[in-house]
This record gives sequence, C-alpha cells and structure tokens, in this order.
Amino acid sequence: MSGTITTVVGNPKPGSRTLGAATTLTEALAPAVWDGEIDHTAVDLATIANGLLAPWLLSSEAKSAAESVLNSGVLVIATPTYKASYTGLLKLFLDVFPAGSLSSTVVVPLIVSGGPAHRHLGDLQLRPVLSELGAVLPAPSLLLEESELARLDELVRSYVARHGALLAAAVSSLATAAAAEIKEKENV
Amino acid sequence: MSGTITTVVGNPKPGSRTLGAATTLTEALAPAVWDGEIDHTAVDLATIANGLLAPWLLSSEAKSAAESVLNSGVLVIATPTYKASYTGLLKLFLDVFPAGSLSSTVVVPLIVSGGPAHRHLGDLQLRPVLSELGAVLPAPSLLLEESELARLDELVRSYVARHGALLAAAVSSLATAAAAEIKEKENV
Amino acid sequence: MSGTITTVVGNPKPGSRTLGAATTLTEALAPAVWDGEIDHTAVDLATIANGLLAPWLLSSEAKSAAESVLNSGVLVIATPTYKASYTGLLKLFLDVFPAGSLSSTVVVPLIVSGGPAHRHLGDLQLRPVLSELGAVLPAPSLLLEESELARLDELVRSYVARHGALLAAAVSSLATAAAAEIKEKENV
Amino acid sequence: MSGTITTVVGNPKPGSRTLGAATTLTEALAPAVWDGEIDHTAVDLATIANGLLAPWLLSSEAKSAAESVLNSGVLVIATPTYKASYTGLLKLFLDVFPAGSLSSTVVVPLIVSGGPAHRHLGDLQLRPVLSELGAVLPAPSLLLEESELARLDELVRSYVARHGALLAAAVSSLATAAAAEIKEKENV
Repeated sequence: MSGTITTVVGNPKPGSRTLGAATTLTEALAPAVWDGEIDHTAVDLATIANGLLAPWLLSSEAKSAAESVLNSGVLVIATPTYKASYTGLLKLFLDVFPAGSLSSTVVVPLIVSGGPAHRHLGDLQLRPVLSELGAVLPAPSLLLEESELARLDELVRSYVARHGALLAAAVSSLATAAAAEIKEKENV
Repeated sequence: MSGTITTVVGNPKPGSRTLGAATTLTEALAPAVWDGEIDHTAVDLATIANGLLAPWLLSSEAKSAAESVLNSGVLVIATPTYKASYTGLLKLFLDVFPAGSLSSTVVVPLIVSGGPAHRHLGDLQLRPVLSELGAVLPAPSLLLEESELARLDELVRSYVARHGALLAAAVSSLATAAAAEIKEKENV
Repeated sequence: MSGTITTVVGNPKPGSRTLGAATTLTEALAPAVWDGEIDHTAVDLATIANGLLAPWLLSSEAKSAAESVLNSGVLVIATPTYKASYTGLLKLFLDVFPAGSLSSTVVVPLIVSGGPAHRHLGDLQLRPVLSELGAVLPAPSLLLEESELARLDELVRSYVARHGALLAAAVSSLATAAAAEIKEKENV
Repeated sequence: MSGTITTVVGNPKPGSRTLGAATTLTEALAPAVWDGEIDHTAVDLATIANGLLAPWLLSSEAKSAAESVLNSGVLVIATPTYKASYTGLLKLFLDVFPAGSLSSTVVVPLIVSGGPAHRHLGDLQLRPVLSELGAVLPAPSLLLEESELARLDELVRSYVARHGALLAAAVSSLATAAAAEIKEKENV
C-alpha cells in the first residue's frame, strides 16, 4: 500500500535539530507503515510562521501545509519543550484545524526536552490538544532529551521496532474505514 | 480469534450505574474485537477495596483482579468523576501495576461526569496515569454525562461503530507481536 | 500604595471581546489592590503578533510588552479557548520569558470558553506554563463562557469582591520582599 | 496570631519518609506564618486507610481527620509519586471533601518523586484536584526527589525563607475575611 506522511516541526528556528530528529523518525517510520510508494511533506513551521498569525488570515503556504496534514495517513509532530510545554509556534498551527479534523490521522509526537526534569512535560501538554483534534494516538510519543540526540538513529530504530507494527495496523484500519465511507457515499 | 477482556470499575458504590455502563460497553465492544470465544472478567473495585490499601498488602481478590487485567487483550476502565478527576479507589488499583506493564493491553476508558463542565476532566487526568502504565489507547474515551446514561445503549452502539475496527486492529497487532516474542524466546 | 498592572490578551483578533473582558477585570481589580496611583498597560497581542515569531527575534513593540509585564505587580492574562487550551498566540508571548521570571508577579488568568464542556480546559492547560514562569497564582482564574459575557460586570464585581483582598495581600507581600532585597543589595 | 495547621500524608506506608519530610516542612513553616500558639495535627493516611473506602462510609478517625483539615488555616499535603501522579490513598481522602470546601485554606503540597523525570508530575496532577476543592495555592509546591531527602533540612529552610512571607500574607488575609464574614452573620 502507498501512503502519505507529513512532518510538522514547531521549533521557531528554521532547520533546527528538532527538524533533523523528526525527519529521521519519519524516514524510519514510513517504510514500517507502508510497503508501497510514500509521499512525504515536511513543514518547518519557522519558515511559514508569519502566515499563521490568525486561523482566518493564513498565507497560501500555511493553507497548503494544513491541507497536507489533512490528507496524510500519518502525521509526525515535533516540538522542543518551551516553558514546560510545546512551543507557541506549534500551537499557532494546531489552532488552524477544526475540532475532530484529525480523526482519520495517526499522529506520532516527538518531543525534545532540555533535560530529564522536563522529559514528559511537553507530551503531557500536547496530548489534550491533539485529542481535541480527534487525533489517533496508538503509540507513546518519542521523548528525547537533548543529550540523547547524539544517539538519535539508535533511539528511532528502537522506537520503530517497538511501535511500527501497531502504528501500521492503525493506519491500515483507518484507511479501510475511510474507503468504505467513500464507497457508501457513492452508493447513496 | 478468541479474546480476554476485563472490566474494572472505580465507583466506591458496589453495583453502581458506572458498572452498568461499563458492562454495556464491554458486551458491545468484545464481539467487535474478536469473532471467537470471549473470556470476560468484571472487577467491581468497591467490593474488594479493603484489599487494595497498599500495593504490597493486596488481598487474594485484589491480586486476582490485577492478574486478570495483565492477562487481558482489552481493558475497559470506568470511573465516575470525583473532584474533577477519576476516583481515589481507581487510582488505588492502578497503583498496583508496575510502570509499562500494560504495554500489550488496549485500554478503553469510560468516564461518567455529573455535568458538562466536568465532561472532559476525568479523562484528562486519567490518561497520563495510563500512559505511565504503557497502556495502548488508540481511541478516544467514552465520555458520558449522567443525564446521557438514559440513552446508554445508543451511545455505546455509536461508539463501537465508530471505533470498534480501530480497536480490533490494535488488539490484533499486539497479539501478533506477543506471539512472535514468545516464539523467539522458545527458539533461543 | 501605587501599583503597576499589565493586561495581556491572547486573542488573535485585535480589539476582541476577550480584550474587553480583560479590561473590565483589570479596572475593577486594580483599585482593590492599590489605593494610590495605578499605571496600567494593555497589550493586545494580535496587534504585535508578527514581532513575536521567535523569542530571539522580537520587535521593539514585543520587547516593550515583555518589559511591561516584568515590571508589573499584577498581570491579567486573558485568552479564549482554542482546541481545548489557551491560544498559540498567547503561548508565543509566554515563550519570551525565562523560567521563573514572574516569581514576583501576581497573575490573574481570565479564560473565555465557547461553552460549558470547555469551561475548565484553558485554565488547566495554562497553569503549568505559568508555574514554569514562577507566576504567583493565589486566586482561582476567572472562567467565563461566551454566554456569560452578557453579565460581565456582575461576574467581575463578584470575582473582585471574593478574591480582591487575597490578591492585594499577595501583591503587598511580594512588593515588601522585593524592596527588602533591593535594600540588602545596596548595603552589600 | 495563633494558628491551626494540619499535615496530611498520602504514602500507603505508615511512618514513611514522606511523613518525615512533611513534618519537617510543617515545623519550619508554622512559625513563619504565625507568631502565637500553633495547633498542629498530623494525619498519616496509611493508619486510617480502611476508614476511607467510600466518602459516605468514613470511620470516626477519617471523619476527625477531615474535620481537622477543614478547621486549619494551612494544610501541608504530602505524597510520593506513584504512576506519574499522587497516590490513590491521597485521592481517597481528597474525595471526602465537597467542591470548594478548602477556599479558606492555604495549601502547601510536598511531592516526593523517585527521580528527575518524575519531578514535576505529581504536582501537575494534584493541582487540578486541589483547585476543584477551592484550595488557595499562592506558592509553588515543594518538589523533592528521593536523593534530595538527604539534605531535607536545607531545602525546607530555603523553601520557607523564599515563600514563608507570601504564605503568611495569604493566611492572614483569609483569616481576616473569615472573621468579617462571621461578624456580618452575627449582625444580621
């Protein structure tokens, strides 16, 4: 099966290490989810931030990024931890989506923290927002302290080995349901 | 495939409406997950509460309830909302499990609240605890305000119609992974 | 005693009803806290949003807004509820401050929600961020559902009657401590 | 002024190190809040747990502990971190109180965690429950990792030095308001 995956990065610095980590995760995860062609879009929010200032005033780049998310089977969302939570930039982007609009999307959060005391905090704060969007979150988030970025490849490999099959099963189930719904509508 | 499902109810009142709602959900959900024989255990924590006062002093009934959870493919956890959260009785029981011990268990929370202002609160508070236990939570929780219990059957049916296939896919994926792990160990 | 109060509004729409509510609260609260001259700054984040896109790239208006907050005895923070939380725009602004930098500031959150099911959610999500900033939060937040804005004056009056003295006591205690600290440094 | 302080400890082990830490905090804090006679009650929940199994079935010891809390100007609440949150035993006790019933009580949480990754988690989960009870929480919680218990005295002293005056101001303000309310009722 072929698939569509989008990576969204909420670090206000363009080309951040958060983006690097999210790309590594996406590239390892996609082939564990789909065996066919993979369509990957990366959205580095730092580069389109000034088009995100209000949900009703999106730039064309911001609209295109949101559409990419809505058309994806899997969404990798990555953020550093700012003030014990995800970044404001990431929330600006999430504020664009209607409640429930990610109910057919498997979301995999990747949270980078400065150290152990903040390890879980970004994830704790992000999940209620993703829930409000209806996001399907079958696996735990990939939590990385900055010092762990040195062994990113190994940690990503281990994450995908552990959770890849479950994520693939969720994606496949949601794709089947979406196809059935489309067919039902055509038959009406 | 046959399956094992446990229902755990955290209402301090034995035989509560929370238990009734959880039983209805369990009976509707199980056949959507498995097509074979289903082994169902219901744990009404109110009836074994005095055996749960410390994780190292469990009664035999409490131990047996915990084992039932650990051997289940699906766990339905139901609680009323007390003080904007799940009940202390439910947490007493969850405190029994080691961190990560539910990583092969699909958990479906059912949260009953007194009214709309508390609709989401029990769920928001419960999920971080379940995450610490490693619980697999692919679907949103079933949230029920007390006034909605009058149309429980309809709301449960709609929940299972919407999320049953995804839950089944997750259970099946975890069962396959567990079987592979057992086989690998035998071959070593 | 004279005092300094800043109102910060995180609604992406300039001149929003959130701003109106926050101004009403500020004007009722300030004379309950100080009996002397009051210096009031209002920051409508929607009007300076494009200067907030990264903490290291602030516009002069954004810097000035942040300084105003840091020099205030009381900070009224107002936000509508977007995606079950505070807005991304508000978080962009909060990301500007170092951890602990509000430890001498009494913060009064005002959270507007679309309806009862979201009544508590913005507050639940905002408080951990404010805690990370060290904010002093002696009173509950003023929670307003949109339908309650029609009787804003009455609800604000009742809030100030109930919590004004406690907030004043906290402000006074922190001002005394700050003055003692300055004196100690001068004597060294 | 004389005062009443209650210490409540949610560790299921009687006579725990959590109790020791909470006692140390209480003894250092009380004289920073009141200069007169201090009435101190310590409630080690582990010793009365079986009287707490349902809010409507309290033992006389449990009732007496709850009354002590309701009559206190300051409540020190201490808990270890179990499953990324406060203990079930503590929540059993908090479930006893009506919503809003601690609105004249200054609460000081003390949270012991096993290590840095859980440092903030118990506090994050406890505060929404305390808010529902109306608790007045002007100061940050005292967070202690187990390894920090070795220098408990120093950390407690530093906490009281930093937050004692603010806590005293809040207690005094609430006592004044309570006295005025009683007088008003007498005059009616």
